[in-house]
Amino acid sequence: MSTPRKTGRRPGDPAVTRTAILDAAKRVFGEAGFERATIRAIAVEANVDPALVHHHFGTKQALFAAAHEIPIDVPQLVLALAGLPKEQLAEQIVRMYLSIFGEPGSPALSLLRAAATNDPAALMLREYLESALLDNAHVLIDQPDARLRIALIGSHMIGVLFAREIVALPEIADRKIDELVPVLVPMVQRYLTDPNLVGHLPKPGIE
Amino acid sequence: MSTPRKTGRRPGDPAVTRTAILDAAKRVFGEAGFERATIRAIAVEANVDPALVHHHFGTKQALFAAAHEIPIDVPQLVLALAGLPKEQLAEQIVRMYLSIFGEPGSPALSLLRAAATNDPAALMLREYLESALLDNAHVLIDQPDARLRIALIGSHMIGVLFAREIVALPEIADRKIDELVPVLVPMVQRYLTDPNLVGHLPKPGIE
Repeated sequence: MSTPRKTGRRPGDPAVTRTAILDAAKRVFGEAGFERATIRAIAVEANVDPALVHHHFGTKQALFAAAHEIPIDVPQLVLALAGLPKEQLAEQIVRMYLSIFGEPGSPALSLLRAAATNDPAALMLREYLESALLDNAHVLIDQPDARLRIALIGSHMIGVLFAREIVALPEIADRKIDELVPVLVPMVQRYLTDPNLVGHLPKPGIE
Repeated sequence: MSTPRKTGRRPGDPAVTRTAILDAAKRVFGEAGFERATIRAIAVEANVDPALVHHHFGTKQALFAAAHEIPIDVPQLVLALAGLPKEQLAEQIVRMYLSIFGEPGSPALSLLRAAATNDPAALMLREYLESALLDNAHVLIDQPDARLRIALIGSHMIGVLFAREIVALPEIADRKIDELVPVLVPMVQRYLTDPNLVGHLPKPGIE
């Protein structure tokens, strides 16, 4: 490994090591994107052993989330949600999403803002969403179009966040989360389970 | 009015006047927001008579659209759509929206990108959407929650645009508009007409 940097951190202090890894992860993800970034490259950038990165953060998805202050590990959450009764799934998804991201200063906002104006940030967000969310769509949705369905749910949720926290449309921004949940749940439920929704998609002539 | 500027334009050339008005409109909307900007202030900034601005562009909403290269006048379009049979409305909305904005280089993208990173641009977009779209919601939707319903449709559509053109999620970005329309139409239809969708919203206890 390379020699210690002049950051003043003491090797061996776990909090300092954690911060150094998160800073390095943010830089490496930002430069290489999510796919091309490796735990090894992040460890080199942070000047620590790769085993230590695994020890502190587990997977690359979890490290990405931690570096961007996203307080959930999406693949793990998908697994947990898959254990719920199907009729509760939509409500849990909407409620968790809005609780985590639908408040002022939400960590997802800086990712959205960066993606909106900066192509490498958009690529990084796409690759993260594909790896953490879309690649696990089949765990939640037992349909051949699971990836499309999850992408549509994600689109709607991103749009609600945009309307609520960025454009601040009063109709969305001034409502409590408890008021928005029952409105959004039927839509998400439909994307999750309606067998006809996307069934006729590849053959637009068939009704 | 003030003396001509040193832009080299010849007063009296309609194309030059139009361009001067559009440039002035963009500046005034960007600085004052949509609500506080006036046709008069834009005319002063463009060094032309306010009557000429009205003559070229009609309403403030239409001038805003022209200045930001949005090729539709939303209030006029809402009136035209209101004449359609209710069961065609959702399809028309989705198809027009995706045709106009769902292609690379869409004019709405620069508004979204600016709003995402710049508070005055977000305010300007909010005020324009309120004036051009939300204030006309009752023309399309015969329900007490017409504004919320339009805001939800708008949220979903903005999210689809974000996923398609900014994040470029392949599930949304790689599909033809004709493939996305039948998937999105039932959702929009539901927001437009489902009487139960938002009916129990103010009293979450009632089912």
